[in-house]
Amino acid sequence: MCEQCGTIHYQNPKMVIGSIPLWNEDEPKVLLCRRAIEPRHGYWTLPAGFMENNETTAQAAERETLEEAGARIELLPLFSLLNVPHVHQVHLFYRAKLLDLAFAAGIESLEVRLFAEHEIPWDEIAFPTVSHTLKFFFADLAASRDGGNFGFHSLDITKSMRLPD
Amino acid sequence: MCEQCGTIHYQNPKMVIGSIPLWNEDEPKVLLCRRAIEPRHGYWTLPAGFMENNETTAQAAERETLEEAGARIELLPLFSLLNVPHVHQVHLFYRAKLLDLAFAAGIESLEVRLFAEHEIPWDEIAFPTVSHTLKFFFADLAASRDGGNFGFHSLDITKSMRLPD
Repeated sequence: MCEQCGTIHYQNPKMVIGSIPLWNEDEPKVLLCRRAIEPRHGYWTLPAGFMENNETTAQAAERETLEEAGARIELLPLFSLLNVPHVHQVHLFYRAKLLDLAFAAGIESLEVRLFAEHEIPWDEIAFPTVSHTLKFFFADLAASRDGGNFGFHSLDITKSMRLPD
Repeated sequence: MCEQCGTIHYQNPKMVIGSIPLWNEDEPKVLLCRRAIEPRHGYWTLPAGFMENNETTAQAAERETLEEAGARIELLPLFSLLNVPHVHQVHLFYRAKLLDLAFAAGIESLEVRLFAEHEIPWDEIAFPTVSHTLKFFFADLAASRDGGNFGFHSLDITKSMRLPD
């Protein structure tokens, strides 16, 4: 509904696109951002945001990773698709290779840092789409050491799966 | 922009979701719909349409397949993601098993029928996202007979790839 005049416009689900930037020297680590904005201010997330017109899903992932984490990545195949129907969103995450360590928090982030799997602040992850994607990712990363491949993961998030505030 | 009052609202890309319904007795055949609406009236397409709020991508694929082709399917994994940035769309197609032959054209279709690969009307396919998905699909179907697997395919469609009108 137009807030100015009250006319109802048809709304479709929005796409949220992000990346899983992996730094893989010595111990594998993933880049997370601590949110400087609501919702979930102060909680940790993978770099991600709303896809915009005139860009592709891959371009959206690279743009959001640069904007939120100041990070340059080489994008790898799509890794997860998560439906969040109660908020009219579909989240996509691409695997990515972090190209250097010259990352820095953008204006929507309080801080940005690398986490090994055992360091992930599971109780302080902003969104269930991010925590599920990270769990899928570290499981596939472990399997890849035994000769397995990274898969593609799809999951529907229902209200009851939301983390407590 | 609100057509009633002129206020500008932020717009995001829309998702178009469809299925590739396969009937696999004797010779494998795919279900296509001939469009009764613009754009591309009279051209053939896989059943697909705009995702709506409060549904998942899988539910959108099943709904559109029932609405446009009157067809009941068992949904299989996501098969293709195609960006169409110049029209602000992302198209997703799921593989699907057609459950019975009691399909019938919905109000947005002129006719619905099964096509073997050699029968596909390649010059009369409505959208490049559909023709590319069908080409990926039949290639993977042939590979699956030699023990291969169906993959996941991602492609960006640019204006120059559009079929001539």
